[in-house]
Amino acid sequence: MVKIPKSHPRRNSLLSRNAIVDATKKGLLADSALIAHGRGEAFDYLLGEQTSEIAKLSIKESAARLINANNPVISINGNTAVLAGKSLIRVAAVLGCPIEINIYYRTEERINNLHDFLEAERMVVSKEIGPSNWLGDWEKSVLAVKILGKEEDGRIIGLEGPRAICSADGIEKADVVLVPLEDGDRCEVLISLGKEVLVVDLNPLSRTAKMATVTIVDEVSRMADILLEYIVENSSEVTEWDNKLALKESLKIISRNAN
Amino acid sequence: MVKIPKSHPRRNSLLSRNAIVDATKKGLLADSALIAHGRGEAFDYLLGEQTSEIAKLSIKESAARLINANNPVISINGNTAVLAGKSLIRVAAVLGCPIEINIYYRTEERINNLHDFLEAERMVVSKEIGPSNWLGDWEKSVLAVKILGKEEDGRIIGLEGPRAICSADGIEKADVVLVPLEDGDRCEVLISLGKEVLVVDLNPLSRTAKMATVTIVDEVSRMADILLEYIVENSSEVTEWDNKLALKESLKIISRNAN
Repeated sequence: MVKIPKSHPRRNSLLSRNAIVDATKKGLLADSALIAHGRGEAFDYLLGEQTSEIAKLSIKESAARLINANNPVISINGNTAVLAGKSLIRVAAVLGCPIEINIYYRTEERINNLHDFLEAERMVVSKEIGPSNWLGDWEKSVLAVKILGKEEDGRIIGLEGPRAICSADGIEKADVVLVPLEDGDRCEVLISLGKEVLVVDLNPLSRTAKMATVTIVDEVSRMADILLEYIVENSSEVTEWDNKLALKESLKIISRNAN
Repeated sequence: MVKIPKSHPRRNSLLSRNAIVDATKKGLLADSALIAHGRGEAFDYLLGEQTSEIAKLSIKESAARLINANNPVISINGNTAVLAGKSLIRVAAVLGCPIEINIYYRTEERINNLHDFLEAERMVVSKEIGPSNWLGDWEKSVLAVKILGKEEDGRIIGLEGPRAICSADGIEKADVVLVPLEDGDRCEVLISLGKEVLVVDLNPLSRTAKMATVTIVDEVSRMADILLEYIVENSSEVTEWDNKLALKESLKIISRNAN
């Protein structure tokens, strides 16, 4: 891994890039993962590489909807696992919900690699001290987080081929799904099944961003840390969320930064 | 390679993506090439995936400066070779100038791979019918294009390590350098050596874009085809180019499209 000085103004962005390159070599990611990461970098650059006020509001809204859900699930693809796997395991531990590995180009090998990767991350997280202001047995809660994705016992009705495969106890059953870095088709179908879909997408113009119930326009690792804070705080007030208006706010930031 | 329907609205973008993924597998590109491509995709998306009027003007200006140069050279890195190698060989044939392979993460293997790749592309181009409105022996002109980069007999003064290596008959000697997808450091040093630097960069906010003599904010394969047209037309009127103003025009387009 390339060394990046602590003082580098874009250190976090470069560390993320290295993590993605390394994970590709380890077989965790599809070919297109690096390209997708690059697209994200460009949008994050235009967003100033920081979590905006509107992004914070959308994270808060997502926290509330996850807290109030009957069967919340956190869907994780390769890039999300690499960039925010640990943080989202913490979120799942506090929420008491499962994580489901769900990837666009599904191969058994990659599902298994990602499963092993997340199991190892879970072990690391279980040895941490839990979040301050959170009461409970941290190790027990982390070890109780189910990492689904290998079962293939559920289906996403409306999708064809390998992309329809999901877990019966995960996405199939869920009423609220957090799906960072999702694609437009799957987002659309999950919405049509009546689920609340909370997405994380740095491109406020993408079809996913436009389709979702709540779109968090933020980098996934920054987002995950803030989401954990709101969930630990038990910030549970769901509002009548105007996602179109929220997307407009993010677009305004890009527009301003490009001026 | 994935099949993309002819009617797909983003066909060109998806074909380019496939070409870059394939070239990575063949060892033509560094790990970071896919990420760089993704960043380009995002900016091109915001630019509407078409060559803007200001981009056309900057291509015209670059054509004129290449035509009037004493020792023009076209510097080509991995992504440029894959996306626009053939078109830039055509440009070099009409200009009668060399091409130099110059890559950020220099390894002998990648230089050799890219050299073989461009030699093969040159053979293909030499069998084409030349551009209409151009008089001359096409095959002879194409076969006369030198593909430099392996010699390592020149230095870019001001850079350290492998990045300083260049060809004495190429970048070292050149007064005007066309360097698509260049990095900021090298662009800065080339400028400081008194060379005119014409860059192609989809990010009008990048350091390269800001440093260059003329910045073409356009996708490199679209750019290369238009550049060839201007050069065949012998469009040779150099103006007092205001690059800052040109960059502002491109930023306005992004800003408008994000609104």
